[in-house]
Amino acid sequence: MEYQELNLPSRTIMTPGPVEADPRVLRALSTPIIGQFDPQFLNLMDETSDLLRYVFQTSNHRAFPVDGTSRSGLEAVLTSIIEPGDKVLVPVFGRFGYLLTEMVDRAGGQTHMMEAEWGQVYDPQDVIAEIKKINPKVVAVVHGETSTGRMQPLEEIGAFCRENDILFVVDAVATLAGVEFNTDEWNVDAVITGTQKCLAVPTGMAPLTYNDRIEEILLARKKIERGLSYDAVNDKKIQSNYFDLSQIQDYWSPDRLNHHTESTTMLYALREGLRVIKEEGIKSRIDRHTKHGKALSLGLKAMGVELFGEEENKLPVVTIVKVPEGISEQAVRQTMLNQFGIEIAGAFGPLKGKVWRIGSMGYSSRKNNILRVLSALESTLTYFGAKVNKGDAVQATLEYYAEADNPVIYKV
Amino acid sequence: MEYQELNLPSRTIMTPGPVEADPRVLRALSTPIIGQFDPQFLNLMDETSDLLRYVFQTSNHRAFPVDGTSRSGLEAVLTSIIEPGDKVLVPVFGRFGYLLTEMVDRAGGQTHMMEAEWGQVYDPQDVIAEIKKINPKVVAVVHGETSTGRMQPLEEIGAFCRENDILFVVDAVATLAGVEFNTDEWNVDAVITGTQKCLAVPTGMAPLTYNDRIEEILLARKKIERGLSYDAVNDKKIQSNYFDLSQIQDYWSPDRLNHHTESTTMLYALREGLRVIKEEGIKSRIDRHTKHGKALSLGLKAMGVELFGEEENKLPVVTIVKVPEGISEQAVRQTMLNQFGIEIAGAFGPLKGKVWRIGSMGYSSRKNNILRVLSALESTLTYFGAKVNKGDAVQATLEYYAEADNPVIYKV
Repeated sequence: MEYQELNLPSRTIMTPGPVEADPRVLRALSTPIIGQFDPQFLNLMDETSDLLRYVFQTSNHRAFPVDGTSRSGLEAVLTSIIEPGDKVLVPVFGRFGYLLTEMVDRAGGQTHMMEAEWGQVYDPQDVIAEIKKINPKVVAVVHGETSTGRMQPLEEIGAFCRENDILFVVDAVATLAGVEFNTDEWNVDAVITGTQKCLAVPTGMAPLTYNDRIEEILLARKKIERGLSYDAVNDKKIQSNYFDLSQIQDYWSPDRLNHHTESTTMLYALREGLRVIKEEGIKSRIDRHTKHGKALSLGLKAMGVELFGEEENKLPVVTIVKVPEGISEQAVRQTMLNQFGIEIAGAFGPLKGKVWRIGSMGYSSRKNNILRVLSALESTLTYFGAKVNKGDAVQATLEYYAEADNPVIYKV
Repeated sequence: MEYQELNLPSRTIMTPGPVEADPRVLRALSTPIIGQFDPQFLNLMDETSDLLRYVFQTSNHRAFPVDGTSRSGLEAVLTSIIEPGDKVLVPVFGRFGYLLTEMVDRAGGQTHMMEAEWGQVYDPQDVIAEIKKINPKVVAVVHGETSTGRMQPLEEIGAFCRENDILFVVDAVATLAGVEFNTDEWNVDAVITGTQKCLAVPTGMAPLTYNDRIEEILLARKKIERGLSYDAVNDKKIQSNYFDLSQIQDYWSPDRLNHHTESTTMLYALREGLRVIKEEGIKSRIDRHTKHGKALSLGLKAMGVELFGEEENKLPVVTIVKVPEGISEQAVRQTMLNQFGIEIAGAFGPLKGKVWRIGSMGYSSRKNNILRVLSALESTLTYFGAKVNKGDAVQATLEYYAEADNPVIYKV
């Protein structure tokens, strides 16, 4: 077998992640390696923490990535704070809520699960009522469910948890830097994200932040590993070494505890991605995501296809389209990829085969991508014999952009 | 605070990792993202598994990376196979042996630790005697200890374990692709490596391989996560979701179980690094590492500094130099970095402050790097007032290279 030079096709990626990386991030990736304790690298680590604080909208002391994909960050937080028997309430409204329950279980926690029909979110008061009933140590919830395209309002839940000394942990993998997320203002104690969605960085790191309430637990469970300390003992020690935040935070502090070897290249990429966000401005970036999400929904409606779920709690960066009667979900997706070079996603669980999930995240959240995906979807549906309003999607979207980009001129 | 363009100094990295990445690998890193289930990406995954089998010298069905730094792979294997109370024998001879005991403990295993003085390795018969006494389920050992520059002979231990149906797990983070390692021939059941050493790829992935004896345990513990399966139950389930090899192997098989989102960019890099190894040839690559390791030792001896540890079980890719009397370990290291742009490493535990650790791994294992580090170390030692044989190191090394590169002409 011959292994060829890396010759990959150019793709327009309109899935809920991984999405296209910002070209500046791609360039940063090829920067030569420097050592993990090189003063220049330590400086990059500090800058990355600062930039993360900005993107998370927090003044937390702790803000750093775990070296792994998004779920590594979720597991790091949950495993580090959950001790055997701890009660954790998880209001589930899609696949990734179930993933949280899975992690709680494996960490030895006692999961109390609420289950909503796919496509629904919770009235915060219903979650608060359940919290009162259960009195959990932790409430863990997904902010944006890419599996259903829905977003859970967090503010009221956060305020109630803080008042009642319950920890509030949020999975913001799909939302951070694409949708408003105010860690401190919303009383979120720990929040985790991924790099491959609205951050426009390749997959492979899980940035997170947490406050002193979380850190207190970490310090009580801290045990420096053997090889660095020989007499450390702690019966409450965290069940993972790799995900032991009590050690990782020392690696990310002036202590520079030699835990793992930070992923040099991915840190270059993350820092550059965050720098792009800082330059764009977090508010402008969220506005951009909102605009292109709206354009996509509007275009799809003009095309005459049906969107899944109610408008009210729609996740702005994921739009879910029902597969028209008699059309093959998979054939459409494959045709879009093979003929147009455009990737959209299928679905999980009860929605599998019934919908397409279209993302508009990070660098992929831009005008030409929205117009391309609408145009290609219309042509593909027509090709397979679905009835659509030919040409309307792109025209409606162009008009929307004309107004959104320059409202004054348009109105004259 | 202003966050500048990434402006990093050019470094010559002669530590035991992370080392310089191959320039071809750096270029591959900036390749644009394609989706994780794009057929072209799945093809890259399959090719990567094939190439890993070649580098691991195995016909194992399972060979793939875990998305995390080296220790993520170690934890994935140990957590996936160790159930509470399982007896695990760990013959420790440096920091990373202790790390294995740490991971066994956190996975709920019962660690039986052998401890050797730093600088020593074990007579395989002593390990075998201990195995007979303990009768463990698993023997876990480090192949090359970067903390002491020593390498443990594995063959006899492997043969004994196989005969007695004991699992043999090896940490080959420091050795794979730089030192001979024959997974199948040596009866190693699971072996884990890292990307940032002899593979010449940046940090961030932990390639591993294991055989059917390991897989049998994984299948008995398998539990597909909630969100993908709703009725799966297994009392013996693995305590981590992220490190659950029973699920990860399904992601890396035609099942394509949607576990995590593979780190696109790091996979490009790993595949390119492995392709470079395939082209160089694993034997030639090992010969190259042997040659430059010898050159470094020979040069250092000619300089008149003392090497740490006995020659016999020296790890060819890490050379440990004793700090001469009255010289500051740290000042020398900092001067080499700040004035010459060359990084060498300090040490851990009982060796801290007493030695320097010089690596010759991966792309850093080449003639100009060896000559540069010798020259800079000599100048720096001289600068701080140490007595060295001025000029001898480089001359002796140049002569060695002349002979090693072209033995016939040299001898005429």
